[in-house]
Amino acid sequence: MTDKSDFLGWTCPRPLQNYPTIVMGHGAGGKMMNDLIRHLFAAQFQNPVLGRLADAATLQVNGSRLAFTTDSFVVSPLFFPGGDIGELAVNGTINDLAAVGARPLYLSVGFILEEGLPMEVLGRISGSIARACARAGVQIAAGDTKVVNKGHGDGIYINTSGLGLIPDGVAISPDKAKPGDVVLVSGTMGDHGVAVMSVREGFKFQTEIKSDTAPLADMVQEMIKAAGEIHCLRDATRGGLAAVLNELAEASQVGIEFDETKVPVRAEVLAACELLGLDPLFIANEGKMVVIVPPESSDRVLAAMRESPSGREAAVIGHVAKEHPGMVLARTEIGGTRVVDLPAGELLPRIC
Amino acid sequence: MTDKSDFLGWTCPRPLQNYPTIVMGHGAGGKMMNDLIRHLFAAQFQNPVLGRLADAATLQVNGSRLAFTTDSFVVSPLFFPGGDIGELAVNGTINDLAAVGARPLYLSVGFILEEGLPMEVLGRISGSIARACARAGVQIAAGDTKVVNKGHGDGIYINTSGLGLIPDGVAISPDKAKPGDVVLVSGTMGDHGVAVMSVREGFKFQTEIKSDTAPLADMVQEMIKAAGEIHCLRDATRGGLAAVLNELAEASQVGIEFDETKVPVRAEVLAACELLGLDPLFIANEGKMVVIVPPESSDRVLAAMRESPSGREAAVIGHVAKEHPGMVLARTEIGGTRVVDLPAGELLPRIC
Repeated sequence: MTDKSDFLGWTCPRPLQNYPTIVMGHGAGGKMMNDLIRHLFAAQFQNPVLGRLADAATLQVNGSRLAFTTDSFVVSPLFFPGGDIGELAVNGTINDLAAVGARPLYLSVGFILEEGLPMEVLGRISGSIARACARAGVQIAAGDTKVVNKGHGDGIYINTSGLGLIPDGVAISPDKAKPGDVVLVSGTMGDHGVAVMSVREGFKFQTEIKSDTAPLADMVQEMIKAAGEIHCLRDATRGGLAAVLNELAEASQVGIEFDETKVPVRAEVLAACELLGLDPLFIANEGKMVVIVPPESSDRVLAAMRESPSGREAAVIGHVAKEHPGMVLARTEIGGTRVVDLPAGELLPRIC
Repeated sequence: MTDKSDFLGWTCPRPLQNYPTIVMGHGAGGKMMNDLIRHLFAAQFQNPVLGRLADAATLQVNGSRLAFTTDSFVVSPLFFPGGDIGELAVNGTINDLAAVGARPLYLSVGFILEEGLPMEVLGRISGSIARACARAGVQIAAGDTKVVNKGHGDGIYINTSGLGLIPDGVAISPDKAKPGDVVLVSGTMGDHGVAVMSVREGFKFQTEIKSDTAPLADMVQEMIKAAGEIHCLRDATRGGLAAVLNELAEASQVGIEFDETKVPVRAEVLAACELLGLDPLFIANEGKMVVIVPPESSDRVLAAMRESPSGREAAVIGHVAKEHPGMVLARTEIGGTRVVDLPAGELLPRIC
C-alpha cells in the first residue's frame, strides 16, 4: 500500500475531511470539486502532464503535440431546449480540445445505459451524437456500451474522450495571462444552465431559453490566425464565468478585473436569474470561451470571434492586473467593486 | 434530421426491434450487444476507423500510428478478490491498447460518483488506480468528476480512455487470421468472472478464486519481439474466450477449431462453474489474451508468453481452418465436436 492521500493531515481552509462522503457539490465545478481534485486525485495521480490542470492535456507523442481530454455527461433531463445529452457530450469535449488550441480529430464514446431505457431514446441520442460529430468534422474512433440494472443509473450517462492535434507555434495555457492583457468572452453567459434548469423545474418563460451548446474549435482556429498569440482560453462550463476567471487568475498569479455591465447576458436569462436568485456569472455555458490576449491583438481577436456563428455577441469585458494576484474583481453597475469568488459547491447540479 | 437508424426496417435474425427497451444483455458482450452496436451505433457513427471493430482504434495522426480506446466500468461489487474497480479500469484499457500491439502511454479517468459514496472508498479506489498506472508505466493525463444524486448511480462508475503508440511494422488486426495459423491463450480462463460472481452471490469455496486482472502490454511487446508477426490479439473480457474466437472467425472469415481439453481452467473455477451451470469458455477474464500467429512462430510466442508473469500458464489451444468460415468448433473431451456460438446475452452482468 502506497496510498498517498492523507485524510487526517489535510489542513486547507476548506478541508475535505469535513465531508466524509461525496455530496453533490463535489461535482459542481467550484471549490469543493477543486479540493477533491487537489487533495485526493492530484495527490495520488501526480505527474507533470496532469499538473497543468488545463481543459485538455498537452502531450508530446512521437514528435507531435496532441491534446487529450475526457468528460462524463450526466445532465438531467436528457433532452432540453436547444440540445440533448448527445450533442452536449460531443461539443463539450470538442471545446476542451479547442481551449488548448487543438484541431479536434477523434472522439471516443462510452455509454452507461440503464436497463429499461427506451431504444427509441437511445436512437435519438446517438443520432444527435452523429450529427454533432459531422457538424464539427470529428470522427468517433472508439466506443463502449455498459448496461446497469434498473434503478442504478439514470437513463443514460455518456463519457466522451477526445484527441486533437495542436498546430505548431500554438501555446495556450491557463498560466499565461499577463498584466495588461485583455479579457473577452465569446458571447452571452448563463444560457445553458438556465435552459436545463427551466425544463427540469417546469418553469415557463415568455421567450424559451435555449442551451448555447456549440462546437467552438473552428472559431478558435480563426482567432489564432487573427491574433498571432492567445495567452489563455477556457470553456466556461460548470461554475460559469466566475469559476473560469478565478482559475485563470490563480494559475497565472495575476488579478483579473472586469466590468459587470459589459458581460453579455440575454434579457430572458437575466430575468430568470433574478426570479430564482441566481447570478448568471456562476451559471454553466456549453458554447462559450473566455479569452485572454495581449492588448495589441484584442481588436483582431474580437473581430474574428464576431465573424463566427458562435461568437456574434463576443465582447471585451475586462483586463488582467498586476495587483491582487489570484483575485477576480468586478466593477458593478453602480460603480462599486466586488470580489467575485470561486463558487463553493452546488449551484445547479446535473447541468452537464 | 438525418437519423440513420432504422428501427422498423431491421431484418437481421435477432432483430433489435424485439427489444423496445435496453435490457441487461445489451451490455454483456454477446449477440445482443453486437446487434446494438451494428444496427444502431455503427449505422449512425459509421466511418472507416470505427468500422474495424478492434479492441482499440488505430489512428494515423501527423505521421504516427496511435491506438485509442475507451471503456466504462460498472462492476458490482466495487471490491472483489484480487482487485477492485480502479485496478480493473486501468488494466482493462491498457489491455485494449496492447491488443493492437501498442505501447500504452496515457489514460484519462472519468468518475461518476454517487452522492453519499464514502470518501474513504473513493480514496482506496483512486489509490488503486495510481498503483496500477505505476505498475504499467502509464500516466493519467486527464480527468473528470461528476456527481449524481443518491439512488441514481451505484457508488462509482469509472471510464478510462487510453492512448498508445503502435511501433513501426506492427499490424495486428482481428481480420488477419489465416488457415493454418495457431491459436493460443495466455493463461487460465474464467477467473475474473467467477471471482466477482462468488463475492456478489456470497459463495464460499475452499480455495478463494481471485480475479486475474493484470496489464498485458509488456508481455505483448515481448511476444512481438519473439514472433516477428502476430496476426490477431484480443483481450478475452465480456463473453469470454467463446465470444473472442467467434469475433475473430467472423472478422477474418475463417473457421477456428480448438481442443476443449487444452484450454487452461483452474480446478476451483471449473468446480464453481459446474456447481452453477456455467461454461468457463463464456466467462470474462481481465488479464488474458487470445493470440493467433503463423505456425512457424507459435513456439517462440508461447515461450515469450510463459516468460511473462502474466503468461505462465499460456497454452496452444487450436488452429485456424479454411472450412466453415465464421464458425468456431470445439473438440470435446469425449472426442466429439460441437459448435461454440457467440453467447446471446447476459451470462454474468456487471462483471467489469
